[in-house]
Amino acid sequence: MAASPSPDLGALIRGHRANGPLQREFYTEPAVFTADMERIFRRRWLFAGPACTIPNPGDWLTWSLGNDSIVVLRDERGAIQAFHNVCRHRGSRLCTSETGHSGRLVCPYHAWTYGLDGKLLINTEKEFGIDRAQLSLHKLPTRDLAGLIFVCFNDEAPDFGPVERDVIHRLKPHGLDRAKVAHTIDYVVPANWKIIFENNRECYHCPPNHKEYNVATYDVARDMAKLDPRKQAELDARVAECNARFRALGLDEGDAQSMMTGEYWRAHRTPLMTGFTTQSMDGKPVAPLMGDFKERDVGTLRLTIFPNFWQHAGDDYACATRITPVSASESHVRVMWLVHKDAVEGKDYTLDRLLPIWKLTSEQDWKICTDQQIGVSSSHYIPGPYSTLREQNVNHFVEWYLGELRGPQPLRKTG
Amino acid sequence: MAASPSPDLGALIRGHRANGPLQREFYTEPAVFTADMERIFRRRWLFAGPACTIPNPGDWLTWSLGNDSIVVLRDERGAIQAFHNVCRHRGSRLCTSETGHSGRLVCPYHAWTYGLDGKLLINTEKEFGIDRAQLSLHKLPTRDLAGLIFVCFNDEAPDFGPVERDVIHRLKPHGLDRAKVAHTIDYVVPANWKIIFENNRECYHCPPNHKEYNVATYDVARDMAKLDPRKQAELDARVAECNARFRALGLDEGDAQSMMTGEYWRAHRTPLMTGFTTQSMDGKPVAPLMGDFKERDVGTLRLTIFPNFWQHAGDDYACATRITPVSASESHVRVMWLVHKDAVEGKDYTLDRLLPIWKLTSEQDWKICTDQQIGVSSSHYIPGPYSTLREQNVNHFVEWYLGELRGPQPLRKTG
Amino acid sequence: MAASPSPDLGALIRGHRANGPLQREFYTEPAVFTADMERIFRRRWLFAGPACTIPNPGDWLTWSLGNDSIVVLRDERGAIQAFHNVCRHRGSRLCTSETGHSGRLVCPYHAWTYGLDGKLLINTEKEFGIDRAQLSLHKLPTRDLAGLIFVCFNDEAPDFGPVERDVIHRLKPHGLDRAKVAHTIDYVVPANWKIIFENNRECYHCPPNHKEYNVATYDVARDMAKLDPRKQAELDARVAECNARFRALGLDEGDAQSMMTGEYWRAHRTPLMTGFTTQSMDGKPVAPLMGDFKERDVGTLRLTIFPNFWQHAGDDYACATRITPVSASESHVRVMWLVHKDAVEGKDYTLDRLLPIWKLTSEQDWKICTDQQIGVSSSHYIPGPYSTLREQNVNHFVEWYLGELRGPQPLRKTG
Repeated sequence: MAASPSPDLGALIRGHRANGPLQREFYTEPAVFTADMERIFRRRWLFAGPACTIPNPGDWLTWSLGNDSIVVLRDERGAIQAFHNVCRHRGSRLCTSETGHSGRLVCPYHAWTYGLDGKLLINTEKEFGIDRAQLSLHKLPTRDLAGLIFVCFNDEAPDFGPVERDVIHRLKPHGLDRAKVAHTIDYVVPANWKIIFENNRECYHCPPNHKEYNVATYDVARDMAKLDPRKQAELDARVAECNARFRALGLDEGDAQSMMTGEYWRAHRTPLMTGFTTQSMDGKPVAPLMGDFKERDVGTLRLTIFPNFWQHAGDDYACATRITPVSASESHVRVMWLVHKDAVEGKDYTLDRLLPIWKLTSEQDWKICTDQQIGVSSSHYIPGPYSTLREQNVNHFVEWYLGELRGPQPLRKTG
Repeated sequence: MAASPSPDLGALIRGHRANGPLQREFYTEPAVFTADMERIFRRRWLFAGPACTIPNPGDWLTWSLGNDSIVVLRDERGAIQAFHNVCRHRGSRLCTSETGHSGRLVCPYHAWTYGLDGKLLINTEKEFGIDRAQLSLHKLPTRDLAGLIFVCFNDEAPDFGPVERDVIHRLKPHGLDRAKVAHTIDYVVPANWKIIFENNRECYHCPPNHKEYNVATYDVARDMAKLDPRKQAELDARVAECNARFRALGLDEGDAQSMMTGEYWRAHRTPLMTGFTTQSMDGKPVAPLMGDFKERDVGTLRLTIFPNFWQHAGDDYACATRITPVSASESHVRVMWLVHKDAVEGKDYTLDRLLPIWKLTSEQDWKICTDQQIGVSSSHYIPGPYSTLREQNVNHFVEWYLGELRGPQPLRKTG
Repeated sequence: MAASPSPDLGALIRGHRANGPLQREFYTEPAVFTADMERIFRRRWLFAGPACTIPNPGDWLTWSLGNDSIVVLRDERGAIQAFHNVCRHRGSRLCTSETGHSGRLVCPYHAWTYGLDGKLLINTEKEFGIDRAQLSLHKLPTRDLAGLIFVCFNDEAPDFGPVERDVIHRLKPHGLDRAKVAHTIDYVVPANWKIIFENNRECYHCPPNHKEYNVATYDVARDMAKLDPRKQAELDARVAECNARFRALGLDEGDAQSMMTGEYWRAHRTPLMTGFTTQSMDGKPVAPLMGDFKERDVGTLRLTIFPNFWQHAGDDYACATRITPVSASESHVRVMWLVHKDAVEGKDYTLDRLLPIWKLTSEQDWKICTDQQIGVSSSHYIPGPYSTLREQNVNHFVEWYLGELRGPQPLRKTG
């Protein structure tokens, strides 16, 4: 008589009904959550934060995944490094705030001091009987993806090259390396991280939920054309018109779809509705031009990297989302708005114009996710059918997820 | 070395000492709580709410037991129906507030729409490849017990006929079907549901705890007569006097006891103290006459249905209590005051006169239950002896409970 | 696939690396916490509170360890007694506040009444069929250690004689039996109880953390002399000077060390810095002389008794600390300031002078413990090396702890 018998993960995976959402246990069972953490979050590249948060040597930020706190810093050579935020002496947390600056990392307990390269600087040979070279901080693999910091909690990180080759040339013109974080909102969403990601992977839910978002993008029109192919020609014409413009500006082309461009990532420029130079409430700019842009109206570069990141980048701002799973039924979500580093609040931009569209859209989605988490927790939840037209990207996410859970496999690009 | 080894339920049941309270584990162990939910709450008829909460077609209320949210509604024909509050598409909760009104049930996620009979109204054949007839909401058995809604979380509900035959003719004159909920108070009581019910099953605790309640009823006098039989005659005379009146009014008879009238239920009219026409602080009426009553002073109809309901109904108001177990050591308790539907607050009744006696008595009991839960959680709690005179109804409850836990058995009426 | 597999305690103990902190599981695993409670807290003598909290017959205090609430009272003969705070009838908690006074213990549920000796005073033979002699409260072993109440949750308490012989003659002159509690602060520290005790067992962390504490004591100077033996002579001279004074006052001698004087306890008088008659911010007295003292400047009597108590007692006040473990990662800590029972607040002492040094030092330590708990919870925490000079007392605590976990063994005094 056990209070909550552990489910058999293999049986759960085999029991998945194709082309529909996952069974209840995937969204509710602590044991599945543990597997998600071990097999996905501790093996894959994760978005830790924008590199512009730590522009100068000695700047650092901390982030926690489960019980593991890490400190991500810019070293004396200007490179990003990440370390487990744990002193090698008695194990105290080293950096105790979200961000900071210091030439050395000094443990608050006994003042053990480390360089920005993680090396212990005090002598230990005599008093502790151990060479300090054995007491360096534990390093994590890191990547700077055109201004976005990715880390891997596993020493043997998967090859990030395919993502870098697909993303960097598209993202670089947006100048995230010359940006600043204008605003951050942290949400505690009472939903499994997969429910949050699945919600992001379709716009079937947009018509009844996102009236502000819908007027700026072709997501709904794109879905409607699938239901009624007669509408496709008009959409294609608009995409072609935008792509001509993107080409002329030296940018990558795109379309109105949200298809993945790699097995677990997507980097795609998408046209905005006529009259919208950026994703704002009225379509008008909300901040100065960023990066290499000389003129407005570059569409929006949508970037998605499983399992914890997505971003929409326009010519004047980027909005990045970082998911941090907390338990089977809770996730922390941080939404960040980036603008040009020299833009001055109140003069060059105001938050009441910068934030609304993604703040509203995000919060509408967290409400949906909250309701879905409650529903799928029911003993009478039965996974329903996916739309073969409007939910194929959700199905792709679910199939990717189940593949990850099954275990290590060669990653092949499916485009 | 386990943090909390699961107890053996069979051994616990066999280890029960007759005529005394249950061992600690029954009040504290998550595994026993799980058994309580599976073997009792998910098999028995449960009180969901007063039918007058949803008087018109399209009105609905929601209630949750564990992770299972249900929606109880009045359909287009005026009948009560109950469904699991879970969309058949991606599993979102359908109705997200406590009560509401809508001609259709529309899922907030993708606007899947259901009729008040639970049938899906959108076409799914083409886009989803499944006939919508396979995607109806999951229905629960329901009963309208003279204005009280009972539901069963098991498709195969036990026969409710014996309860209906015993209760309806007694309760009908009180007109709960023509009532309204004048006030509701929700309590989070840090105690196991059985501790709350056991407290309800005796008045041995009344003298030191319920001074307001004691002056209105014969519960204490009844117990005293058991200790000193010389007092019995006076009590019998009062009961006979009241019963003559009840008969003259065409009502059921009763007595001052609180004995069960069925194996797991009780419906009994009980005299009030001379000078009390209703259970109020001063004995005077607190609201207009309800139901079929033409004159005051009809005693109080006590109604108890294991495992989650009791009610005291007078001629001017009824006070109903619904228990919703949350965990081994926590229960939600809702107390509702019902008056005639046409009664106007401030004119026909005021809350400061309607509420006190049951608000005080309830809160005095939750305090007792809180202290008992803390005490029985102690490693040094030893179940003591029940009074053979004043706690025999608690013993009946405990024996019924253990019988339910042992497993499905034919229900026989023991009166 | 288990969410959190239980660790093997024996393997954990065998895996301990000598002369360094414990592995993660000892600070984080519920199963180890359960073992700590069963093998240490439920077998050893625990500090429950100062005897002066309950000066008169009928005075009582309550304390809870895990789910076990106890009531500690002064009986009619003036002796300390302790009982499990659980009624023998239905198990309700008897005393529901932190402190109180009553000639009898009356259960709030059904008014079962017990004498101050724990004997049931109501007759049960007739109504309950059991002799009341079988229904006494369950007693705990207690000791009054010169004004400090110790209890044992195990009926077979270990011999407390060695502690009494070492402590009482040193502590008695401080007159805790003629004291009162001037102030109490309760802390919820998010750290394992061992992290809190380990922090108490060294002053290596003092220089970067305790600037107020450091100016009053020789703890830092003592450590510095270990690193640089040339400083030892000066320290020895100061200790000799103070000991001459202590001898002249008829007190026990001491030194500047913090070594244990018994296997699991320490009672040692320690000199204060020149100019400090007591541990206050400026070294000046903060309250009237206590106990037998006729003049100021008696150093500070440091008292430590594993696993939940330490105290610093000067001539004008004592500051006692009681640890109550709550879970693997949380502890309640109560800090109490005791002064002469006749001292009048506002006239003879003020809290703004009495509290600061130990309030600041305590809170600085809870911050350290919080950061260490977070750090050692990391999957990348590796126990580091202890200083062979400044952390040998921490190592002693860890070795004592592991010995206790291994199981019952004869206690030998190691001084």
